[in-house]
Order: sequence, then structure tokens, then C-alpha cells
Amino acid sequence: MTTASSTCKVGVIGLGSMGLGMAKAGLGAGLVVSGYDITERQREALRAAGGRVASSAAGAAEDAEILVVVVVNAAQTELILFESGGAADKMATGGVIVSCATMAPADARRLAAAAEKKGLLYLDAPMSGGAARASSGELTFMASGSPQAFAKAEPALSAMAATVHRLGDEAGIGASFKMVNQLLAGVHIAAACEAMTFAAKLGLDLPKVYEVITQSAGNSWMFENRVPHILDADYSPRSAVEIFVKDLGIVADMGRAERFPTQLAGAALQMYLMTAAAGMGRDDDASVARMIAGLTGVKLPE
Amino acid sequence: MTTASSTCKVGVIGLGSMGLGMAKAGLGAGLVVSGYDITERQREALRAAGGRVASSAAGAAEDAEILVVVVVNAAQTELILFESGGAADKMATGGVIVSCATMAPADARRLAAAAEKKGLLYLDAPMSGGAARASSGELTFMASGSPQAFAKAEPALSAMAATVHRLGDEAGIGASFKMVNQLLAGVHIAAACEAMTFAAKLGLDLPKVYEVITQSAGNSWMFENRVPHILDADYSPRSAVEIFVKDLGIVADMGRAERFPTQLAGAALQMYLMTAAAGMGRDDDASVARMIAGLTGVKLPE
Repeated sequence: MTTASSTCKVGVIGLGSMGLGMAKAGLGAGLVVSGYDITERQREALRAAGGRVASSAAGAAEDAEILVVVVVNAAQTELILFESGGAADKMATGGVIVSCATMAPADARRLAAAAEKKGLLYLDAPMSGGAARASSGELTFMASGSPQAFAKAEPALSAMAATVHRLGDEAGIGASFKMVNQLLAGVHIAAACEAMTFAAKLGLDLPKVYEVITQSAGNSWMFENRVPHILDADYSPRSAVEIFVKDLGIVADMGRAERFPTQLAGAALQMYLMTAAAGMGRDDDASVARMIAGLTGVKLPE
Repeated sequence: MTTASSTCKVGVIGLGSMGLGMAKAGLGAGLVVSGYDITERQREALRAAGGRVASSAAGAAEDAEILVVVVVNAAQTELILFESGGAADKMATGGVIVSCATMAPADARRLAAAAEKKGLLYLDAPMSGGAARASSGELTFMASGSPQAFAKAEPALSAMAATVHRLGDEAGIGASFKMVNQLLAGVHIAAACEAMTFAAKLGLDLPKVYEVITQSAGNSWMFENRVPHILDADYSPRSAVEIFVKDLGIVADMGRAERFPTQLAGAALQMYLMTAAAGMGRDDDASVARMIAGLTGVKLPE
């Protein structure tokens, strides 16, 4: 994290747990940050942190040299940039769009082409790291785009990221890497939930299972991160079930379009759908374990 | 690894990549090790390492205070101990059977009961760690059994293990932990293969995918360990596809018996079966990637 020129104007659209943290990290690095979110509470949080709050997405884009778009998906990104209000048209000439939503590579390429048509640069820059790392400016970006786009986005990337993977010169590559990561992450969370409920069915001591597995070949980053939510019976959403309904849904769409079977991602998607169907879509994604426990009658920590 | 009394007689039945290494670790710790395997080549390897080679499984058990059984499954373990030749009957009075094969908890409990009927101790002691760690005496055991069984087995455990998880006083608990680990390990390998072939389909640079994912939330112990086999196009078996046909088969059997659905383990089992069906059952388990590549026409490193 380096301190950037205070004259660099940055817009941040979408002030959820990630976007708000990124806006704060930008402010902390001395950038002039203007933000917008559809929720008043989130706008107020940016104001409290010393950021400028715009009255619309397009307003946040006004004269922005860097416009960071941190919304849910490709459709929202497209709507904000090129349709309702047309944030892209408000940006400074030659500005760069840093597009952070997880989306199919084909969508990233389409949005990049639309940006370039308007004389704007586009960085395909999905990220990972969670809300805490967003606030501390320690996200990881899986980014692709032209060298010009990277250079123009540098002040924001420096402020917001601990690691920027530069994955190629074209939009779509960053999105592809993110989808590969989401395939694995989504399968691993569901597998952790299947394994822990299976362990409960076998009558095992669950904290001991966590201790043993995290030292064994069955471990995963997600097992280590999510199983404590099950052990603490804390399903407040750090990341919601609906996120993987969406992301594994993108994997499924890509697989169908490309005639590429994704058997495990497909099975995991059904488990997230079952969990959402049971009313837990907005709860933490470790709720897949609660769904299985509910079906099978096994007892998890309460 | 501590040096144990040289008077302690240890039998090792099954001198495959794991059993041979464990026998060597026992020798290295000063134990008197007598071993047997059905393959002459493996018997010769023990002889070359300074171990005594018996002419039958029962011969290796003769007067053994500790009998380590490192065969493929519960059926082989039972046959060796209690049927053909009856190795259990040859052991020293009050000796301990250290049963290392991966098996269903119900099988472990049944074998333990049969051992106890003969006045023998029984340690349910599946392990993990691979051949290299077996030879260096650095395995991990997921063990359960009576305090007497642990105490009696101590010289062998000290010689062969870096970590002994003491999981409970009854046989079946160690086996249960191992099955939970195998469920996760089997799903994670298949997921790694699905993700890497998906990445290939998307045209990504595969070594770069490995580099990025191992630093990301999509990582798993198995992704980190097995993907290099794909990148090196080296499918010589460190652990074969058939192992997970077997182990996820046990998970599937347990799930059916207990009316407990294991959706991801079930999907992964089908992927190992597909790979075995395509003629790669004895190759490295990363061959699941070759199976998917063969179906879909994506190119992997050659």
C-alpha cells in the first residue's frame, strides 16, 4: 500500500462490505474518493469515513480517472456503466474502469469492448480476500487488461491490494481465473459441510475433527476458514449462500455453453440451491451444513 | 522417533510402499522386525534393508508383541488375522494388532472384537502421509483403542509416526476420522482435476493457474500436492485411482447403510470410476484430469 497522489479522483460504485472497505482504503492512501450505493446506510458509512457521497452512480463517476465498480454481477455492472444514468459517459477522458464483480469471461470481454468504444480503459479485476482485507487495503486482484489500463489504475490498486496478479493483456482472463477459483471454493465449502455432518453422523467430536483434518491431507483453505462457523453455530453471513448460487451458476452456464461437464461444481450448486430453498440463502455459506443436518437429523453445535 | 528396546518383536504384514517404509522405520529405531508380503520383490526389499523375512503372514506374526497389518482393506486384514494361516493365533500373549488399512468403522469394531476374544489388544490405526514419510518414520496415525493397546504399541508408533492422534478408547473412531479425511481428500483431488481442465478449456496458462490458486481461497492440500503431476504430465502412481474407487466406495456404502447422503463424495466416486473405466485405474489419481481431457478434447501438458 503506497500513498498516491491526492489529485487522483476515484469513484467507487457499490459500497457493500467489499466496496466500502475499498473506498476507505482509497481514502487512507490519500485518494479523492467519491462513492455511491443504493442503500442510504452504506452511503452514510462512506460519509462517516470522510468520503464524498454522490447522489447517483453516475454522480460518483463524474470526472473520475478511476471508476471502481463493485456490484453483484455483470448485469448490474453493465446497467450502471452503459444504461441507466450511463456512468461511463461521466468519467474523465481516458479514465479506467476497474470492474470487480465476478462474471463470465465473455461478459468481461463484452463490457471491455463497450468501454473501449467510448475511449475508456478497462481492467478486468475480480478480487478475493473478504471485507476485513478490503478495509485494510490487502485484497488480491486477479486482473487482466492493457498495460495502459494497469498503469492508469495503479493508484487505486496500490491502495486496495496486497497482491495484484497480472494475468494477461485482455479482459476475460482475470474473470476466467476468478471462475476457476470460485469453482474450487464452492466445491470445497460444500465438501467441508458434507464431511462435518458425516462426522457428526458417525458420532465424532467435531472440534477434534477440525483439529485433525486441518493437519491432514483432507484440508482446504475453505475447510479451515468455514468450519469454525459450524463449530460456533454462527451463521451470520461473512459470505452468503446466494453468492455461490450465483457463482457456481456462472460455472454451470459456462460449462453448458462450452459443452464442458463440471460434475462436482454441478453437485455443489445443487447443495447451495437446497440450502437457499430451505430459507437460508442470505445466511453464511457454511449453512450448507445446517441444510444437511436438517435433512438427516444429525446434531450440530447450537 | 525414539529408539525402542531391541527386544521388542514387531511383525509387519504387507510390504507395499507404506508397509515397507514402516518396517524400515522400525528397523531404524532398533526394533526386531519380521515382515511378509505376497510379492517376492517386496520381501527382497525388506531383506536388503536388514529385516527378517518370513515365509508366510502367520510366520511374520510368530511371537510378535506388535503386529502391524498394512494391507489394502478390511477383508484382507480379516483373512490374514483370523482365517488363512491365522496370524493372530501366532502372536505373543497379550500382543497388540496395529490395524492400518482404511476401512469402515463397523469393520474395525468387528476385527477388534475378534482380537479381544483371543486375548489380544487391537489398535484401530489408519494412517496418512505417503511412502516417503513412512520410510522416515514420520507418518500420522488417526488411532483409537484402549490405553493398554496404545501402551503396548508405543515402540512401533514411536518408530513410525511423527504424530499420533489419540482419538478415543474404542476401535472404530480412528477408522471414522480416516473416512472423513478420505471423503475430503477424494473430493478435493477430483475438484482439482475438474478445475484444471476447466482452466485449460478457458485457454489459461496452467502453471500460472497453479501459482494463483495456491495463493487463493480455492486452495486445498490436495490441489497443491496433485496439480504438479498434471503440469509435469507425470501419472506414475504415487497413489492410484483405484485407492479412491475403494475409499469413496466405503463412504458410499456407509452413507447407504446409515441413510446419509454424500452428494459430493458420490459425484467424485463416479469420476474415479470413469477414470478406471478408461483404463487408468492403476495410474496416479491425478489421472482424473486426463479422463476429463480425453472426454472433452482439452489439451493438458504432455
